[in-house]
Amino acid sequence: MLMEPNDYHVSMDALASLCKRRGFIFQTSEIYGGINGFWDYGPLGVELKRNIKESWWKSVVQTRENVVGLDSSIIMHPRVWEASGHVGNFKDPMLDCRETKGRYRADQILVFKHKSNAATLMFAYPEDEEPPRKKVKKMGKQNPDEYEIVPLLDIPVENYDRLVGPDASEAGTLTEPRAFNLMFKTHVGPVEENAAVAWLRPETAQGIFAQFGNVHAVSRQKIPFGIAQIGKAFRNEINPRNYTFRSREFEQMELEYFIKPGTDAEQHEYWVSERLKWYERVGLPEGRMHRDIHEGDALAHYASACTDIMYDFPFGTQELEGIAARGNFDLTQHQNTSGKGLEYYDEETKERYLPHVVEPSAGVDRIALALLCEAYRVEWIPKDGGEVLTADPDAKRAPEGYEARTVLRFAPSIAPYKVAVFPLLKNKEELVGKAREVFEQLNERWNCFYDQAGAIGRRYRRQDEIGTPLGVTIDFDTLEDDTVTVRDRDTMEQVRMPISELEAYVAEKVRF
Amino acid sequence: MLMEPNDYHVSMDALASLCKRRGFIFQTSEIYGGINGFWDYGPLGVELKRNIKESWWKSVVQTRENVVGLDSSIIMHPRVWEASGHVGNFKDPMLDCRETKGRYRADQILVFKHKSNAATLMFAYPEDEEPPRKKVKKMGKQNPDEYEIVPLLDIPVENYDRLVGPDASEAGTLTEPRAFNLMFKTHVGPVEENAAVAWLRPETAQGIFAQFGNVHAVSRQKIPFGIAQIGKAFRNEINPRNYTFRSREFEQMELEYFIKPGTDAEQHEYWVSERLKWYERVGLPEGRMHRDIHEGDALAHYASACTDIMYDFPFGTQELEGIAARGNFDLTQHQNTSGKGLEYYDEETKERYLPHVVEPSAGVDRIALALLCEAYRVEWIPKDGGEVLTADPDAKRAPEGYEARTVLRFAPSIAPYKVAVFPLLKNKEELVGKAREVFEQLNERWNCFYDQAGAIGRRYRRQDEIGTPLGVTIDFDTLEDDTVTVRDRDTMEQVRMPISELEAYVAEKVRF
Repeated sequence: MLMEPNDYHVSMDALASLCKRRGFIFQTSEIYGGINGFWDYGPLGVELKRNIKESWWKSVVQTRENVVGLDSSIIMHPRVWEASGHVGNFKDPMLDCRETKGRYRADQILVFKHKSNAATLMFAYPEDEEPPRKKVKKMGKQNPDEYEIVPLLDIPVENYDRLVGPDASEAGTLTEPRAFNLMFKTHVGPVEENAAVAWLRPETAQGIFAQFGNVHAVSRQKIPFGIAQIGKAFRNEINPRNYTFRSREFEQMELEYFIKPGTDAEQHEYWVSERLKWYERVGLPEGRMHRDIHEGDALAHYASACTDIMYDFPFGTQELEGIAARGNFDLTQHQNTSGKGLEYYDEETKERYLPHVVEPSAGVDRIALALLCEAYRVEWIPKDGGEVLTADPDAKRAPEGYEARTVLRFAPSIAPYKVAVFPLLKNKEELVGKAREVFEQLNERWNCFYDQAGAIGRRYRRQDEIGTPLGVTIDFDTLEDDTVTVRDRDTMEQVRMPISELEAYVAEKVRF
Repeated sequence: MLMEPNDYHVSMDALASLCKRRGFIFQTSEIYGGINGFWDYGPLGVELKRNIKESWWKSVVQTRENVVGLDSSIIMHPRVWEASGHVGNFKDPMLDCRETKGRYRADQILVFKHKSNAATLMFAYPEDEEPPRKKVKKMGKQNPDEYEIVPLLDIPVENYDRLVGPDASEAGTLTEPRAFNLMFKTHVGPVEENAAVAWLRPETAQGIFAQFGNVHAVSRQKIPFGIAQIGKAFRNEINPRNYTFRSREFEQMELEYFIKPGTDAEQHEYWVSERLKWYERVGLPEGRMHRDIHEGDALAHYASACTDIMYDFPFGTQELEGIAARGNFDLTQHQNTSGKGLEYYDEETKERYLPHVVEPSAGVDRIALALLCEAYRVEWIPKDGGEVLTADPDAKRAPEGYEARTVLRFAPSIAPYKVAVFPLLKNKEELVGKAREVFEQLNERWNCFYDQAGAIGRRYRRQDEIGTPLGVTIDFDTLEDDTVTVRDRDTMEQVRMPISELEAYVAEKVRF
């Protein structure tokens, strides 16, 4: 029931339960049964997301003189998406089951089939499940060990009559896969006619490319320079899944970093390294982060490099951010489609060219989910002192002599609340008055929490569970000498310090 | 050509020109000819908006223990909009002209008609234009003074055969007004069928009501308490207009403040007063702000009070924020439609009830536009000293002996950049080195600007034009005694201070 802290991972059920109970994440429109692929952030979730975005903006925009921000609209001119290729190519293969009415992404379905006997039934199943060995056995006289696994898209459609769909009871009920565009469609203006079709942006990046000329003209920047944007994007996913990981509405933080052609490789490597440093600073340790380097067919035809930044989620290692060297594909497309010149004039070399671009594109919701997974710990604290143990979160009870606590070990810069302030007792007016004074001073600068309800130990635990890094307690000594105790969430150690030093101490601790 | 500073107002053309030239606001997808009702915020606009939102969040959420945040999705379950009444009632009357193909909001069209002669032609025209007196004269023998102005919706449809549309040449080409729902429609999931219809939210408020139960359960709040949200909303306006004022995509800052029934009037007045204080702090002076108090028919049937906070825009006095006491209309609707109990149990009085609500609902884009209008000044500065004159912005040139400057007098807390740092000369390594040091120290904490290009006077002017409140110059004295000059944007006065005092000076100046 014990785990090494570094091996630790929460189960998604335990995490989702805490997220709902403490107000990080709710199902959208839960009172109406929810809506698949959409999530709301509660009081703590919204602060967590604000901190992630603020930290990214500070790191990517504010502290870089050659990066400026942009806030482009979600609905753009439809020709933007013709130019970018999204109208033509942003599609997933989808198929239906006539028997179960299930709908699947064809590229996420595998088939369990006999290695040599072409006449037997084949069984389709979702890629994140185990192969249906039992179904094979039930057919009688069949040995699952003689079966192999192939992608559904490798099965010729003329053999679908022998193919049993996931959860289906008979063969031949799956439809032929067809391309489905993932962009949400709407109409601008008061009539639903073709001329008025518009799309919800499936990424924030194209808003940047479409404004490249304007932003360059006003910002007096020389290459290399970047344009950054944070905002909502929408993809009509066929199968939203893994809690908030693959949603239909999500928030992106994207940078387009415009560079001189030929510097692509070095600039790409630079941004992979910069972004990995950021992930470490917000609390995702090196050991859980990976680079997935795209090569060959995995690389878009216009791209010279693409590295996905991956995190070890409990449900598998998955992408948080893609960093692609996209050449000048997008600017070329927009220049050709709009007929507007987007070339850059290099005053030093007297050259005129379309800049290349490196694009670090990160998902806010995925980062929030990774930070929650990483931060979540169940610990057993020995009542008589000694070593704190990291417990499996599914172990419900602490053993004899131990007390359990749930703690979110957020990096202080990311934690929803920075400091909780407690008077030792709520029925002593002087303690409460002093505590309010300290609280109001700190809360003016940071998001802080005041709590006077219940035993001090229980108040500590409530803050541990929402990841507040510091707890300040006002006790009777405070009234004598203006000192307070400051408790550290992770070590649970307390230090005593003068109130006058508190603000500088907190500032240093929560600094990004 | 002179104006009293308090009477001052920029023309919208001059403002839009500066906004584009300096990177506050661009037309969305401008390279494709734009898309009516959508706007992008450039490098300075995005910082302005960030500051507005941050200031609101600090004032409404962070510094109030009984208000928590929420970030709900833009696409929600469609029943949310049935419950709220938006599917049934969120409609504008629209009519078309068969001749000109023009499309109008019927409630924004007036009719110029003869006071007594029912047989003559009538002329429809947009409410923000002058009555078409010339058209009347052209008819021959008609006297415009015998004509009156009535709303188009008061003209019986059977008389439309005598009605000439705006810009139309003959009568009888306007269609009967019909109700048009302002919500953008889309489909969730891979088929466009009725069951999958969803809407882009036309307001953020309903996301709060739909999560009232969850947020109340997790936040341990007692009434009165509030739930606040900032986010995008969409309305498919028939006639977007007045620059960014009436857009199809916009951002809201909304608070739902849940109260005990019977306290509606006092809570409503409290929030009107709180919000007006905020507007003054961000830079909109009392003299330009008005309360438009809805009474009688102007009040929704469920509301007990509604006050619009209005600002004197150059194009008229218009709403920035509506503050409504909505009773328990929304919670009642969601309770009835979802079948989920949303009642609040008051532990003190042992009563169970549906809370009433006061809703301050503000538009970020409108506030940004008001701040830009208010901040914009053209000033004539006497070259030999003396009084600075406020000039009409359409007066292109300053008179003899004066120099003109354009300045955005933003409140420092709202200004995109807080400090600009200049070395006196760019070819003196020590000056540049010291200036970079000062810049990096300040830029770590605030959004700052470093500029070494051109004469110092021109650098000041560039910062004036984007509203940077402070300019710090590093000169040869700095190298001797570690002091700098700090120039104030508004007074243009300079004070000398030690570098060590700079951070505290700036902090005090830009504090919200």
